[in-house]
Amino acid sequence: MPVLLAPDQAPTLSQLLAAANTIGLDCKILESPEPSPRIQGLGSLNCAGPAEISFLSNPRLLHQFEACRAAAVVMTAGSYEAARNRPSGCRIVLCSQPYLMYALLAQWFDRHRTDRLAAGIHPSAVIADSADIGQDVSIAAHCVIEAGAVIGQGSRLGPGCVIGAGSRLGRDCLLHARVTLYHAVTVGERAILHAGAVLGADGFGFAPDPLKGGGAWAKIAQLGGVTIGDDVEIGANTTIDRGALENTLIGDGVKLDNQIMIAHNVTVGEHTAMAACVGVAGSTSIGRRCTIGGAAMISGHLVLADDVHISGGTAVTANISEAGRYTGVYPFAGHAQWQRNAAVLSQLSQLRRRLRSIEKNGKTDQ
Amino acid sequence: MPVLLAPDQAPTLSQLLAAANTIGLDCKILESPEPSPRIQGLGSLNCAGPAEISFLSNPRLLHQFEACRAAAVVMTAGSYEAARNRPSGCRIVLCSQPYLMYALLAQWFDRHRTDRLAAGIHPSAVIADSADIGQDVSIAAHCVIEAGAVIGQGSRLGPGCVIGAGSRLGRDCLLHARVTLYHAVTVGERAILHAGAVLGADGFGFAPDPLKGGGAWAKIAQLGGVTIGDDVEIGANTTIDRGALENTLIGDGVKLDNQIMIAHNVTVGEHTAMAACVGVAGSTSIGRRCTIGGAAMISGHLVLADDVHISGGTAVTANISEAGRYTGVYPFAGHAQWQRNAAVLSQLSQLRRRLRSIEKNGKTDQ
Amino acid sequence: MPVLLAPDQAPTLSQLLAAANTIGLDCKILESPEPSPRIQGLGSLNCAGPAEISFLSNPRLLHQFEACRAAAVVMTAGSYEAARNRPSGCRIVLCSQPYLMYALLAQWFDRHRTDRLAAGIHPSAVIADSADIGQDVSIAAHCVIEAGAVIGQGSRLGPGCVIGAGSRLGRDCLLHARVTLYHAVTVGERAILHAGAVLGADGFGFAPDPLKGGGAWAKIAQLGGVTIGDDVEIGANTTIDRGALENTLIGDGVKLDNQIMIAHNVTVGEHTAMAACVGVAGSTSIGRRCTIGGAAMISGHLVLADDVHISGGTAVTANISEAGRYTGVYPFAGHAQWQRNAAVLSQLSQLRRRLRSIEKNGKTDQ
Repeated sequence: MPVLLAPDQAPTLSQLLAAANTIGLDCKILESPEPSPRIQGLGSLNCAGPAEISFLSNPRLLHQFEACRAAAVVMTAGSYEAARNRPSGCRIVLCSQPYLMYALLAQWFDRHRTDRLAAGIHPSAVIADSADIGQDVSIAAHCVIEAGAVIGQGSRLGPGCVIGAGSRLGRDCLLHARVTLYHAVTVGERAILHAGAVLGADGFGFAPDPLKGGGAWAKIAQLGGVTIGDDVEIGANTTIDRGALENTLIGDGVKLDNQIMIAHNVTVGEHTAMAACVGVAGSTSIGRRCTIGGAAMISGHLVLADDVHISGGTAVTANISEAGRYTGVYPFAGHAQWQRNAAVLSQLSQLRRRLRSIEKNGKTDQ
Repeated sequence: MPVLLAPDQAPTLSQLLAAANTIGLDCKILESPEPSPRIQGLGSLNCAGPAEISFLSNPRLLHQFEACRAAAVVMTAGSYEAARNRPSGCRIVLCSQPYLMYALLAQWFDRHRTDRLAAGIHPSAVIADSADIGQDVSIAAHCVIEAGAVIGQGSRLGPGCVIGAGSRLGRDCLLHARVTLYHAVTVGERAILHAGAVLGADGFGFAPDPLKGGGAWAKIAQLGGVTIGDDVEIGANTTIDRGALENTLIGDGVKLDNQIMIAHNVTVGEHTAMAACVGVAGSTSIGRRCTIGGAAMISGHLVLADDVHISGGTAVTANISEAGRYTGVYPFAGHAQWQRNAAVLSQLSQLRRRLRSIEKNGKTDQ
Repeated sequence: MPVLLAPDQAPTLSQLLAAANTIGLDCKILESPEPSPRIQGLGSLNCAGPAEISFLSNPRLLHQFEACRAAAVVMTAGSYEAARNRPSGCRIVLCSQPYLMYALLAQWFDRHRTDRLAAGIHPSAVIADSADIGQDVSIAAHCVIEAGAVIGQGSRLGPGCVIGAGSRLGRDCLLHARVTLYHAVTVGERAILHAGAVLGADGFGFAPDPLKGGGAWAKIAQLGGVTIGDDVEIGANTTIDRGALENTLIGDGVKLDNQIMIAHNVTVGEHTAMAACVGVAGSTSIGRRCTIGGAAMISGHLVLADDVHISGGTAVTANISEAGRYTGVYPFAGHAQWQRNAAVLSQLSQLRRRLRSIEKNGKTDQ
C-alpha cells in the first residue's frame, strides 16, 4: 500500500487497534519485549513493510507468514498455533475475525485520508433557496442542489454532483464526484455513491403508437421514484431507473458494484450484493442476501428467492424459488475446438432425434 | 405513485382528459350521478388511491378492477362489458387504446412537473460567443456550450451538460444532467438524452504500428460525426461513438435504454428500440422497427433486416436477412446440474462422432 | 468525412504528406502533369470527394478504386500494379503501409481541429493551491483539481474534469469532458481519456460482518491506487477501480474501448486492446499484446498469457497459459429452432448417459 501516514502522525499498534476497532471485536496483542511500533499503513502478507500492519485470514497463505516483514500481523489463535514453528519477527495480534479486523483497519486508514479533505460548502456550488442542508454537510465545487432537496447531517458531496428537485439524502452519506440524482429519489443513511452513478433516470417504457403508425413509440413518462435503504453502496457509472408508477426499491445494506443497470420497478432485498456489469430488467424482484456474479443478466418480471447465488455471466430467464447456486455460462475453448462443438450445438435437437431413433430401432443407415 | 398535485391544483377528470389527449384519441367518460372528481395523480389498478386515475389495458388484470380504489379507470368497451358483473366504485372512461391513453396521461403529469423547473440561462453556464442559442432555451448551472454550437428553440439542458464545438441540438430537446456531446454531433428535434450519456467519443480504431513494433498501436483519429434523428431517446450512461470517416447514424424515433454502446459507423433504423446493456460493434447496420433485448451483443460489420427481434442476452454473430425473432441465450440451471451439462458441452463433437459410429456400426465397445 | 478545412487553409498534397508523416514512413507521390491539388479532408474510397485524400489498404477493395473521385489515393506498389488496368483520375501516393499512413493523415486532420480549441485555464476551474500545473496546460470550464494533484506539461482537460487529491497526469495527456480521477491515481504520458471515464473508484470488497449478522457486509476500504502507463487510451464511461492494498496496473500502450470495467488489482499487459463492454474481475492478470473482443467477461483471480485473443462475448472462467484464440459464445438461431436446441441443452448429461447405454447394450426400450 502507498504509505499513508507520516511517521510522526502514525499511531502505535495499540492506539491503532483501539481506534479502528469500533465494533468491539476481541483483539489481543501478544506480549513482546520490543516497544509498540508505530503503524503507518496496511499491506498484504507478502507486500507489507516494517511500518505496516498485515493480516492472515486465509489459512492457505500461512506459508507467506514466515517471510512477512510487517510490524504486526492479525490472525486467529488457531493460525498462531499452526504458525509457531515458522518464526517471524512480526508482532502477533490475536483476533477471532482477522478478515473483519482487516476491514476495520482499512476503514480507519481511509477515514484518516478523508478527514483531510476540504469541508464546507464551496462557493461555486449552486444551491436552491428551498433546499434543506443539514449540519456539517460538505458540498464540493460545481455541485447543484435543486429546489426542495434535503441533504442529511454530515453528508459529503464530491465535485459536480447534482441532486434533483425534492430528492433526499440521509445522514452521513458520501457521494464521490459527479453523482446524479434525478428528482424524487430518496437515499437512506451512510450511503456511498461512486462517480458517474445515475439514480432516477426514466425507466424504459413506451407504448406502440398506432395512430402515428410506422412503428412509432409513445413515451410512457415515468412518474415513480427510487427509494434506497440505509448502508447501501453503489458503484461508478451504475444506473438505477425510477419506477413507472411506483418506486424502484433497493433494500438496506445492498452493495452494487460498477456499471450495474437496475431497471424500473425492480426490488432488491436487504444485503444482496451484485458484482460489476450486472443487468436487472424491469419489475424483477430479487430476494435478501443474494449474490449476483459479474455480468449476469436477470430478465424482467421474475421473482428470485432469498439466498440465491447466481454465478458470473449467467442469464437468469425464469423464476428461482429455492435458495442455492445457479449457473448458466457456456464453457469457452480454443477456437478450433469451440467451432467443432458449436456446430453440434446448432443441431442438438436433431442429435436427440437420431439417438431416439437408435434407441427404438437400433443401428440406422441415416 | 407519489401524488404530484395539490388538491387545489388538480384538474377535474374531464379537464385532465381534454388536456392530456393531445392526439385526439377517442375517449368518453361514462355518465355518473357523482360530480366529476379531481385527479391528483396516476396509479396502477392495485395501487391507485381515490384521487388518482388508473387504466386497464391487459385483460388478464380484470380481476384487479373489483377492488380498485381509483377515482376513474380507462378501459376498452370490451373490458367494460367483461367487468360489468364486478361492481366497483370507479368511474369508467372508455377508450379504444387504454395503454396509449395511459402514456398520454403520464406525459401530462410529467409536463406539470417539468413546467415548474427553473427556466432561463444560469449565470454559471459558460457559453461561447459564437454559439447560437434559440428562443426559450433553458441552460442549467455549470453547462458548457462550445464555439459554434447550436441549441434549438425551446430546448432544455440540465446541470453540467457539455455541448462540443459545432454540435447542433434541434428544437424542444430535453437533456438531463451531465450529458456530453463531443464536437460535430447533430441531434434532431424533441430528443430526450439522459444523464451521463456520451455522444461522439472516438470510435475504437487503431492500426498496428510495425515501425514502433512490440505490438504497439497507432491511433486512427476519428474524423466522422454522429447524426441523431428526431424523437430519439437515449438512456443514462449510454455511449454513441463518432464515425471513423463518415457518420454514425441513429434514425428517427429510435429508443435506446441505459448503458448501451453503439460503436463507430453503426446505422440504426427508424423506431428500433434497444433495452439496456446492449452493445453494437462497429459498422453494423440494424434495420427499422427492430427490438433488441437487454444485454444482447451484436458483432461488427453485420446487416440486420427490418423487423428483427433479438431476445435478451443473445450474441448476434451473423447477418440476419429475414424478419422474425432470434435467440441464443444458454439456459441456466442449478449449479450441479449445470456442471454435468457443461462437461458434455465441451465434448459435443465427440458425442456426435460416437453417435455416428453407432448409426453405422451398431453397439460399440468404446 | 465532413470537410474540415476551408480551401485557403488546405495544404497541397506534398505539404500534407510532409506534415502528417511524423514517423518517416516511405511515401512517394507519382509524377503527374496536373498541379499538386489542395487536400481539405480525408475519406474512404467510395465516399471521398475531389478535395479529399483516400487510401487503399485492403486489396479486396481494389474494385472501388476505379470509380474513386478522391484527389489522391495512398496504396502499396503491389496494389498500384494490380490497379493499372483500372484507370482513375486520382493521383497515386505509393507507401508500403497505407493503413498506417491513413492513421497518420487522420491524426493530422484531428490535430488541426484541436489546435483551434481554447487554450489556457478557464476562470471557472477550481484549482487547489497545492496542485502543480505544468507549462502549456489547458484546463476547461468547471474542472476541479484537488490538493497536491500534478498536471504534466502540455496536457489538456475538457470541461468538468475532476482530478483527485494527489493524482498525477503525465505530459501531453488529453482528457475529454467529465473525466474523473479519484485520489492517488497516476497516469503516464500522452494518455487519451474519454468522457465519463472513472479511474480509481473503490474496488468491490466486503467482509461478512458476523457481529451485525443477518447477512450484513463490512466495507473493506480500498487503500491501493491505479497506475496507468504511457500512451494509453481509455474509452467513454469506462471504469478502472483502485486496488485493495496494492495498485491496479494498466501497462504502456493499452487501448480500452467504452464501458469497460476493470476491477481492483487487475494487471493488463503492454499493448493489450479491449473492445467495448468487456468486464475483468478482481486480481486477474492479462498478458501483453492480447486482444479481448467486445462484451467478453474475464473472471477474477485468473492469469492470461501474452498474445491471447478472446473472441467477443466469450466468458473466460479459467487460466489460459498458451497464446492463441479462444471462443465460447453460444450460436444464436431463429427462436423456434433455438427452443428445440435449448431444451436438449438442459438434458445434455442424460443424452450422454443414453448414448453410453446404447454403446454398451445396443438398442434400448427406454
